[in-house]
Amino acid sequence: MEETLYVRPGRLHYFVRETFKRLRVPAKEASKVADMVVAADLTGVESEGVARLAFHADRLSSGLVNPTPEIRTVHQTPVMATMDGGNGLGPVVAVAAMDLAITKAKHHGVAAVAVRRSNDFGMAGYYARMALPEQMIGLAMSNSAPMVVPTHGTRSMLGTNPIAIAIPTVEGTSPFVLDMSTSVVSKGRVEELAKSHEPLPEGWALDSSNQFTTDPEKALEALRLLPLGGRPETGSHKGYGLGLAVDILCGILPDGSFGLELSGAEGPQPDIAKLGHFFAAIRIGALGPFVRFRNRIDEMLKKLKSTSGTEQIYYPGEPEYEIEQARRANGIPIPPDVAAELEGLSRGLKLQDAWEHLLEGRK
Amino acid sequence: MEETLYVRPGRLHYFVRETFKRLRVPAKEASKVADMVVAADLTGVESEGVARLAFHADRLSSGLVNPTPEIRTVHQTPVMATMDGGNGLGPVVAVAAMDLAITKAKHHGVAAVAVRRSNDFGMAGYYARMALPEQMIGLAMSNSAPMVVPTHGTRSMLGTNPIAIAIPTVEGTSPFVLDMSTSVVSKGRVEELAKSHEPLPEGWALDSSNQFTTDPEKALEALRLLPLGGRPETGSHKGYGLGLAVDILCGILPDGSFGLELSGAEGPQPDIAKLGHFFAAIRIGALGPFVRFRNRIDEMLKKLKSTSGTEQIYYPGEPEYEIEQARRANGIPIPPDVAAELEGLSRGLKLQDAWEHLLEGRK
Repeated sequence: MEETLYVRPGRLHYFVRETFKRLRVPAKEASKVADMVVAADLTGVESEGVARLAFHADRLSSGLVNPTPEIRTVHQTPVMATMDGGNGLGPVVAVAAMDLAITKAKHHGVAAVAVRRSNDFGMAGYYARMALPEQMIGLAMSNSAPMVVPTHGTRSMLGTNPIAIAIPTVEGTSPFVLDMSTSVVSKGRVEELAKSHEPLPEGWALDSSNQFTTDPEKALEALRLLPLGGRPETGSHKGYGLGLAVDILCGILPDGSFGLELSGAEGPQPDIAKLGHFFAAIRIGALGPFVRFRNRIDEMLKKLKSTSGTEQIYYPGEPEYEIEQARRANGIPIPPDVAAELEGLSRGLKLQDAWEHLLEGRK
Repeated sequence: MEETLYVRPGRLHYFVRETFKRLRVPAKEASKVADMVVAADLTGVESEGVARLAFHADRLSSGLVNPTPEIRTVHQTPVMATMDGGNGLGPVVAVAAMDLAITKAKHHGVAAVAVRRSNDFGMAGYYARMALPEQMIGLAMSNSAPMVVPTHGTRSMLGTNPIAIAIPTVEGTSPFVLDMSTSVVSKGRVEELAKSHEPLPEGWALDSSNQFTTDPEKALEALRLLPLGGRPETGSHKGYGLGLAVDILCGILPDGSFGLELSGAEGPQPDIAKLGHFFAAIRIGALGPFVRFRNRIDEMLKKLKSTSGTEQIYYPGEPEYEIEQARRANGIPIPPDVAAELEGLSRGLKLQDAWEHLLEGRK
């Protein structure tokens, strides 16, 4: 395939679900994972979409992830819980945990759930967004395998440890969804520039001698990304501090693993990931009338956007919302290299029918 | 005075308390404000210490802040509350709100309190730290008068909107206290460099034509600080998104004010500040044994520090903790210009006795 495919979200969902089912994930759970994967591709977060399907498949086939985990609630109060993900797929574990946080917040106004023994959950914003239909604010975090170097450090001790916050807005407009790694950029962005032989902007990464580098190859070899803020004089201790706080909430609070104990895509040897997550939900109605909140946030965001200069001011989540509208109309683009990988995967798993079904429905 | 004074924390507390009492703040509340002010000076956060006393005094004298506010709980559930600060002093309102969050979290494991109609609360970390003796994680945020420009924006629409997270560690070691503005730097840091005629590092601020500037005078004139991340290509949308989230949680959630509606130190005209805050507390024991948590965080922080290079790796709160130990032993330094200001204030308020008492006790 040499051209980008444009596929329908529903058919892509079917293909992803069938892939996970073939890897012994029960249908209901496979469908939940597909929900997250398609949501990522719909909103332009390709790094967590089908481009990562082969990675998940690999880890399931090699026994590093349990397709049928026992997900347990280990500790519980009316507004809090600790869960053990049983080394299940990240999205399956994360949806269960965020569901629990939302249920508890429905009754009591606020709730928090910490999770251990999980895996890469993909797009953090997906779980934060689950709170929105309930008129709640959602919060989602995860730790991840080390590739970020602390301020003044010489070794990667932290993952890119994302934080996502979703806040409801007026219907028919984009919700507020901040979904950020606590590093300057993700590894994926460095890989993109390596592919196109472009230099990195200053302040993204160190090389293996701990010097700032703009060479993407050297940055990938060392895998020492800088925390948000970049250099010490531009506030790298803040990104580093946020990343560390995420590692504590996701790794230590649920009595799971942290820092160098974590593995995943990035470890030297494939190993069980041992990732943890942290979720919270706040019901807005518990603090005052929701309608008032919604009207005021609409006022805020409109006012903010009215001060755009030559370039448009967006609020968090808005660019992704616009991409989603376009992709719902025109299809989700699958670049040739990803399409080739998916086709290979479908052959390996004897899922040619699902692959053909996807191709037939292309736009 | 031409030399730096080194004063005892207890005597400084007395002086600050007497100052607020003279400004019609009741003794108990005056003492609470002095607690925060002295804590700031002890931990090296001078910008929120006595260097800011004249500012608070001014706003009290001119009637912009109410010395005897009625602080009300407007909405309440067992784990949440909205409070109205009655335009009282920020630290008085904030301590009441954080106390309520802690009391609720004691019973239920997690709690959140949003506050409207307050004033500058000083050091955000002070309120987050209140959770520590209760073996809780504390969270504190505030919005503030606009001086930060959104990514691609042309006008300051957000305050430096700080976020503080405090997490307990082993006794006798520094607690984890991340206390960060969501801008690259505070206005105070720019003022320091202006004073010493040094250029700003790249990526701190825009000038009044919305160009990046390294000239501290131009940066102060425009007052368009950049969000954490600095430039778009180094993730400024993340700092901007965090700052906006703080403004929503502190301004809209408690049905208070946000963005350009806020005033305070920075407005063109002195006006009622209308600031809001957001606090949360999580009782660690609600998720698992506290001892296990404490041991694991000790292990994490030691491991982290063991990877220091030529420069020492600190975790958030540690530099401030070291400063506090030194200042408890050697006194709190008051530079000549601040001392002159305080002496002037003491003359104006007829508090020469308290001032003399402070001087007599110097180290």
